[in-house]
Amino acid sequence: MTLVPVSEVRAKAEEALLKAGADPDNAALQADLLIEAELRGVPSHGLLRLERLIRRIGNGAIDPRTRGRHDWRGDGLLHVDGQNGLGPVVARAALDAISERARRLGVAAAAIVGSNHIGMLSYYVETIAAQGQVAIALTTSEALVHPYGGRTALLGTNPIAIGVPTSNGPFVIDLATSLVSMGEIHDRAHRGQPIPEGWALDAEGEPTTDPEKAKHGAIAPFGGAKGYALGLAFELMVSSLAGAALGRDVRGTLDDTAFCNKGDLFIVIEGNSGQGEAFSRYLDLIRQTPPEAGYERVLIPNERALAQRAERLETGLPIADAVWNAVLKLSEEGKP
Amino acid sequence: MTLVPVSEVRAKAEEALLKAGADPDNAALQADLLIEAELRGVPSHGLLRLERLIRRIGNGAIDPRTRGRHDWRGDGLLHVDGQNGLGPVVARAALDAISERARRLGVAAAAIVGSNHIGMLSYYVETIAAQGQVAIALTTSEALVHPYGGRTALLGTNPIAIGVPTSNGPFVIDLATSLVSMGEIHDRAHRGQPIPEGWALDAEGEPTTDPEKAKHGAIAPFGGAKGYALGLAFELMVSSLAGAALGRDVRGTLDDTAFCNKGDLFIVIEGNSGQGEAFSRYLDLIRQTPPEAGYERVLIPNERALAQRAERLETGLPIADAVWNAVLKLSEEGKP
Repeated sequence: MTLVPVSEVRAKAEEALLKAGADPDNAALQADLLIEAELRGVPSHGLLRLERLIRRIGNGAIDPRTRGRHDWRGDGLLHVDGQNGLGPVVARAALDAISERARRLGVAAAAIVGSNHIGMLSYYVETIAAQGQVAIALTTSEALVHPYGGRTALLGTNPIAIGVPTSNGPFVIDLATSLVSMGEIHDRAHRGQPIPEGWALDAEGEPTTDPEKAKHGAIAPFGGAKGYALGLAFELMVSSLAGAALGRDVRGTLDDTAFCNKGDLFIVIEGNSGQGEAFSRYLDLIRQTPPEAGYERVLIPNERALAQRAERLETGLPIADAVWNAVLKLSEEGKP
Repeated sequence: MTLVPVSEVRAKAEEALLKAGADPDNAALQADLLIEAELRGVPSHGLLRLERLIRRIGNGAIDPRTRGRHDWRGDGLLHVDGQNGLGPVVARAALDAISERARRLGVAAAAIVGSNHIGMLSYYVETIAAQGQVAIALTTSEALVHPYGGRTALLGTNPIAIGVPTSNGPFVIDLATSLVSMGEIHDRAHRGQPIPEGWALDAEGEPTTDPEKAKHGAIAPFGGAKGYALGLAFELMVSSLAGAALGRDVRGTLDDTAFCNKGDLFIVIEGNSGQGEAFSRYLDLIRQTPPEAGYERVLIPNERALAQRAERLETGLPIADAVWNAVLKLSEEGKP
């Protein structure tokens, strides 16, 4: 593990993307997404992904210059053909466009297809909530999750993020509808540790605690039947509005060559600024709830991530040696 | 338990509401919500609630004539002062208004405060999805749910419903962010049965399997930290947009006299009609997934409820004697 100053990581990641052919603004935004994930302790959405992005650019599966083509379907609904652009670049352009529309209309939404992995969803809703608007973000993924009671992976991890303005800054949640991420299962496999019962099934649909077997099987939905229902509804809703692929037809976030055909959905609603303080008081009340036996304290979503971010801005980013060496090589050569 | 033809239940429930002072249209809609819940096997949102509604009308906490006051905040965002109207009446008027706006704008939303309990959320999103639009519905409630790791009830049960059009009719989910409903805990108490570990805490914040103690305590969020995060985000988002009360300040869905100050939020997005068949094929694939050991088959959300509805339209509604007798008395006297 190497501790690298954020400015150095940023310079190298941007350099790598520039050499691969990205415009400067696009390189900066894509690098920022990866770095923010590292800052907040979500390495599965961090620098690990840079090599794959650059391979995909080299293979023509990502066009690092486009921001996507915008097609308004009514004054408030934006449909975006991502034109195989970098996920954060296409997402940001769409989100900025609907944020502006929501100022006038009260609400606007964007459905995106044909864009690449957009990274940590909280990034997007946090920036919108910081501007005083409520935001909902959804994205779909390759089929990694089994339906409740079923043996095979048919659903994406289908996360949701929500941002709400408060007088103490944005309140943010960001969670997958899978019980854990495939990244966590790979991490256990890497460290040779078993996974807890109930996390996953093997390729035959039998429960397993072996992460190597789980890698070829299916992750459980979180919260049983309810998490399954949510994940399925998100998959259908996003696919419906974006025109994106469904289930096992989804490609392009875990490989180097396929055009990415998942969907993203953003909804922005003009906030009611009058209640920010009531929200902060309510969150304080929750924070101060006496903890249940076995728990140290009650946490507010996203606060641990923000504390870690503040710390890492000072200390630098702890990056696995193999990942950092790959970033350095990419920044020198613009390819793996 | 009495088996009563739906037409007879409908006539008696409408009669009760008319005698209590509701307009005919409003009485029909409120009765329909209660009856649809009974048809779909959700008696906690069914006729059980009629007596409380009529007491609240008698006490001036419900105005059974108003449809709420509409205030457009931009072309696409409707804010509704419910004027203490019947929940379904105010919700339906708002939903119809934004459904029409979404036809033109692509998306529209309504935030409602000061309306009463709106009943089963699936009712609303199903009707919108049947018209080819995607719908999201949220509503808040009295604080009955403890934060993950905390001892006291600070969150509503904060359900979400989503409806998506498919070529085989609406796909619908409707779920609370609590692990179970307070109605289920009352039902166990009534039958003298213990509740499973993990469902609830007692008034001191200790885990309990005694439903009598759980009634005065707090229900767990579903899915641990993730369900807690979702429920909290829904509470803040709805409250923010509607101007509704938060947490323990919420009143008026479980008592006979307080003005109801929870919030409701609806979002309607114009659908993309081109994919209906792909959705039906995908749902078939899920339905046909080989079941895990211990499961009979994989279920699609809402399908069991719809099958039960079809059956009960034929057989009549099985209604607890005490509930049916109360409905009969209310229909004769217009008060309890």
